[in-house]
Amino acid sequence: MPRKPNYDRDELIERARDLFWKCGWAGTSLKDLEAILQMKPGSFYAAFGSKEALFALAMKKYATDGQERLQALAQKHGPIKALQLFPEMVVENESAPAKACMLSKTLLELHAHNHPLAQAANLHLLEMEAHFAELFQLAQSSGDIDSSHNPQVLARRYQSDLLGLRVSAEREGVDARAIAAEIASGLSML
Amino acid sequence: MPRKPNYDRDELIERARDLFWKCGWAGTSLKDLEAILQMKPGSFYAAFGSKEALFALAMKKYATDGQERLQALAQKHGPIKALQLFPEMVVENESAPAKACMLSKTLLELHAHNHPLAQAANLHLLEMEAHFAELFQLAQSSGDIDSSHNPQVLARRYQSDLLGLRVSAEREGVDARAIAAEIASGLSML
Repeated sequence: MPRKPNYDRDELIERARDLFWKCGWAGTSLKDLEAILQMKPGSFYAAFGSKEALFALAMKKYATDGQERLQALAQKHGPIKALQLFPEMVVENESAPAKACMLSKTLLELHAHNHPLAQAANLHLLEMEAHFAELFQLAQSSGDIDSSHNPQVLARRYQSDLLGLRVSAEREGVDARAIAAEIASGLSML
Repeated sequence: MPRKPNYDRDELIERARDLFWKCGWAGTSLKDLEAILQMKPGSFYAAFGSKEALFALAMKKYATDGQERLQALAQKHGPIKALQLFPEMVVENESAPAKACMLSKTLLELHAHNHPLAQAANLHLLEMEAHFAELFQLAQSSGDIDSSHNPQVLARRYQSDLLGLRVSAEREGVDARAIAAEIASGLSML
């Protein structure tokens, strides 16, 4: 009977996610990973296979968490308020290892190299865009947003502005909360 | 009397800029640089000192070019039209080695490592923001934009949206031209 691993796999993936999110693909060495996971190379490979496989798991965890946070906001506040609160939540998250989005960091770092992780990042961004579109559609059904708008177009622009906000939030001397507030108030005028 | 270098230094810096812009700091090796510049290690170090010093020159060239393109648009079309045309110009530039902004790529890659190049990138972004603010102010003086707005606030949001646009333009399957057109038409409503 195989021995049960004496660690919580999800918790390890979260630790790896935080390191990858902060330092990026090339900026995170196997040695850094083994140190933060407190694993020796043999156990690391037995558990995750490769740095790339672990990065993919970390990115999936990142994407799922984002979707769940958005969903929770929507359940508590309704669709339009959720879309208004999300930018602020994202830049005010003090426990996040970076203000910029892990998916866009990955895309920008690895797209030029045609790396499969850049494609995976883009797919996660598309999933998130679909969630935004769904909320815009719900906001139209409830009369919070004029029905003349195309929810996909609104979601695409909202996501683009959010990605910009998160780059801005990574900068010194930029008031990202003010930009988040402007994105939120822009939604009131739709 | 020292021998005159038999190359055009600016042209070499441009070649390095394109490689750094596309592949990033860690994604560009000294070997890649020496190959694209057709220089041996000795000449490379004699000419530029280090990879970091060359990256700083490349980024300065990138920033200056952006400022000059914006300035040229403003001289030809006036301030508000220049601000409206700039997003489209940026995503439609087919000769650019990447759609994303080199300054934000550098910032996102190196900020976590407290790298001096991340700080330099942020300073170049601040310079660009000041140019945007200047054009917003001119557009107010000429009556194209309501004078109740704060030009610095407009410039900060415009730059943030532009950074988002350029991340979006790097993605597969995203219609960045449509986002650029939305940013432009948003300026008409100020």
